[in-house]
Amino acid sequence: MQRWKITIEYKGTNYAGWQIQPDIKTVQGQIELAISTMCSTNLNQVSVQGAGRTDSGVHAIAQVAHFDILDNFKIGQTFNEFKMAKALNHFLLKDDISILKAEKVHSDFHARFDAKSRSYIYKLSNRRAPLTFKKGLLWQPRGNKMDARLMNSAAQLLIGTHDFSTFRAFNATNQNPLRTIDYLHLCEVADEIHLHIKARSFLHNQVRYIIGALQLIGYGHWNGEKLKQVLDAKDRRCGGPLAPPHGLYLSEVKYE
Amino acid sequence: MQRWKITIEYKGTNYAGWQIQPDIKTVQGQIELAISTMCSTNLNQVSVQGAGRTDSGVHAIAQVAHFDILDNFKIGQTFNEFKMAKALNHFLLKDDISILKAEKVHSDFHARFDAKSRSYIYKLSNRRAPLTFKKGLLWQPRGNKMDARLMNSAAQLLIGTHDFSTFRAFNATNQNPLRTIDYLHLCEVADEIHLHIKARSFLHNQVRYIIGALQLIGYGHWNGEKLKQVLDAKDRRCGGPLAPPHGLYLSEVKYE
Repeated sequence: MQRWKITIEYKGTNYAGWQIQPDIKTVQGQIELAISTMCSTNLNQVSVQGAGRTDSGVHAIAQVAHFDILDNFKIGQTFNEFKMAKALNHFLLKDDISILKAEKVHSDFHARFDAKSRSYIYKLSNRRAPLTFKKGLLWQPRGNKMDARLMNSAAQLLIGTHDFSTFRAFNATNQNPLRTIDYLHLCEVADEIHLHIKARSFLHNQVRYIIGALQLIGYGHWNGEKLKQVLDAKDRRCGGPLAPPHGLYLSEVKYE
Repeated sequence: MQRWKITIEYKGTNYAGWQIQPDIKTVQGQIELAISTMCSTNLNQVSVQGAGRTDSGVHAIAQVAHFDILDNFKIGQTFNEFKMAKALNHFLLKDDISILKAEKVHSDFHARFDAKSRSYIYKLSNRRAPLTFKKGLLWQPRGNKMDARLMNSAAQLLIGTHDFSTFRAFNATNQNPLRTIDYLHLCEVADEIHLHIKARSFLHNQVRYIIGALQLIGYGHWNGEKLKQVLDAKDRRCGGPLAPPHGLYLSEVKYE
């Protein structure tokens, strides 16, 4: 058996998220299909494990996953890392999924459990004119100008360990709400604002709720004090709106 | 009568180019339709003149055009520049066309004849992995790595006034083949190579033929000497391949 680690870029628009589901197109499902076609094997003999289960419509710049090629598939013995990426991309050609890198790893590597941190980028459009090239790739809350410096300055209080109950999905109440944000920075890139955020792990919808609050600060509706209040309230009902998935990118997964 | 100048961004993928044609979707056609709907007038009373007639599939970051609003349409009297852009964008919402700016101009302004220079960007992908977010927005000639410095260094000999017969469409032989390239530079942007090129005007397909030759240099198949030879040959049949339209962007039109 050979375990492979792959780094994957995908445009999430046309997928019901990462995780495989019956009768719906998902990123995990399409990659498992590609592997089983490549190996001429049954789909149920293939299992791909991803580092982050991105939601429907969320993109990835560098998702990481692993899978095994059993010894009875010749491909596992003969493919080098370059050929494996090329072959997978061949079978994914009609998808918006691209294998950036394939690496042979030790059989105890686990893409999800071994991940030491996950980084996300959330991209906001800060222009009035409708999007063309980046339609579906940025969130454009309104036509007005958000103040990125105000947003970044207020957002610093989220860094560190907090109870993020205000910033999680209603259906995520079984998760421990304590999370540690290691890095958080907003910057302007031409007429866009990018949030870079990093943690060992995130609550479901955490980044999207954080951006939902921060854009209110960008427009001057909220300030840093208000953000502190809603964080301290530890109550989803005090938070801002949920930002849409199409501005969110899983950008890096780090291992030791 | 009020003449308006508009600056337009469009993703050319789903249009048969700029210029209006019967029964086909074109950028000029969609903008004329938007203006006539906005003014509740007949389509034949509306005429939009663009600075550059981009080909089918070519994009624009900043195409410039002008049109007139006759005095009997109230809109011409009441709309300020901000409202005009907003109204046009409203009627273009389902298109990949975005009005970045609308300005009132003197009635003798002409978007095409008054243009002092046109700038284009041609974007090449220089990575092996298939594209996702930028599918249809870059040309990816092959999987190997092109050497941008070799390309830029060789391309400098195209600057200035030359007979560009080698770098024009077969159907453009009625045009004077002399053109003056004022600026030409290739640079690497992450895993992309961008050609920036500027001239008062270009021959039909000139930029795409230039890139078709330069990518051969990037892969080491041609060198600067060969480029000089094919330029001097003044013969289309000596040139490289025609690069596809989807890497090309009209990026700036300058007026006095």
